[in-house]
Amino acid sequence: MKEKFLLNIPTTLRPEVAAPILCAGATTYSPLKHWGVKAGHNVGIVGFGGLGHLASKIAKAMGAEVTVFTHTKEKLEEANDFGISAVLEKDEKAMQGLTARFDFILSTIPQKHDLNPFIALLKRDCTLCVVGALEPLEPVNNMQVAFHRKAIAGSLIGNLADTQEVLDFCAKHEIGPDIELINIEEVNDAYDKVEQADVRFRYVINMASLKGAER
Amino acid sequence: MKEKFLLNIPTTLRPEVAAPILCAGATTYSPLKHWGVKAGHNVGIVGFGGLGHLASKIAKAMGAEVTVFTHTKEKLEEANDFGISAVLEKDEKAMQGLTARFDFILSTIPQKHDLNPFIALLKRDCTLCVVGALEPLEPVNNMQVAFHRKAIAGSLIGNLADTQEVLDFCAKHEIGPDIELINIEEVNDAYDKVEQADVRFRYVINMASLKGAER
Repeated sequence: MKEKFLLNIPTTLRPEVAAPILCAGATTYSPLKHWGVKAGHNVGIVGFGGLGHLASKIAKAMGAEVTVFTHTKEKLEEANDFGISAVLEKDEKAMQGLTARFDFILSTIPQKHDLNPFIALLKRDCTLCVVGALEPLEPVNNMQVAFHRKAIAGSLIGNLADTQEVLDFCAKHEIGPDIELINIEEVNDAYDKVEQADVRFRYVINMASLKGAER
Repeated sequence: MKEKFLLNIPTTLRPEVAAPILCAGATTYSPLKHWGVKAGHNVGIVGFGGLGHLASKIAKAMGAEVTVFTHTKEKLEEANDFGISAVLEKDEKAMQGLTARFDFILSTIPQKHDLNPFIALLKRDCTLCVVGALEPLEPVNNMQVAFHRKAIAGSLIGNLADTQEVLDFCAKHEIGPDIELINIEEVNDAYDKVEQADVRFRYVINMASLKGAER
């Protein structure tokens, strides 16, 4: 049954747009779907990079009111350009104004960070899911978690059914990652820029460029 | 509507047995009910003190297969006396044999402790709920949590409806906390013994003894 492992890429998705959906798309779609995000929900997305910007678009297409949390001032405007509101994590007043507002929060930051400010923003019985940091997390204050029966969960990419779903979902809603298409020769430069967080929002290598590249 | 704040103590529950149900009972019944514990489930109870021994009885009465985790050798046998299997937390071989076995785990230990060994014991999509430690918890390894979409939650006592339910539940199933009834004069000695974990499993003060006590 090897055909079970095939995915159908909708013809309206350009290959360079489809590629990151197979990873970043599945990683963010799967938990948004699992925790039942729907129209009318308030959803928080922590981090606005490769995962975060795609998560925001998907949650918005699911009908949710999306708020992005970022450390980077320039990203406030970039999120707004996508029609998504954004808050600076260190803006304590803005954060306080969002207490107990969210039905679901997804952390896409790829390393451990303080989750407690976001736990305060969850409604009762709601979940903060961490898909970015696959390591020991910073200590969570159970006083905050227990008082309103909240939960901290994790999720890892998605299964093949989820992956097909997110491809179809992106095609249907005409969304996808914002990418920078590069040739193979540019990969070292791109790597440096990824490390400097200077990418909007995913590099995709045009593998056709491999043929003409010098060995 | 002050009568909303009244609870009906079933006549079959002696007052000294009913008293701890109002706190330890509600605290453990509420999450066991919320996370849908039912017949056929494997439920782990971490800690076998005031909360843990009552949680074990309630989960068992719900039809679950209960396993207690304890640091105290003597409590292995005490749990068995209640018809509940128990495992020493530091028995690595026994712990490993229980990997991915549990539908729900409740931690009743009243201070922070390493949750990671218990996260490994959860099935996919299942929850470890911490009711004991109301403080910053030890770091949780999200590699373990994310791989099988697990969650760490918290819960705080229960509402009045839950409290009435657990009173009725205990009466119906003829269960309750094991208590040591003391007179008011013994309270200092009892306090020391609580600190030394030398209580099986809750002290209850007979308030009638207050009348005769020296001032």
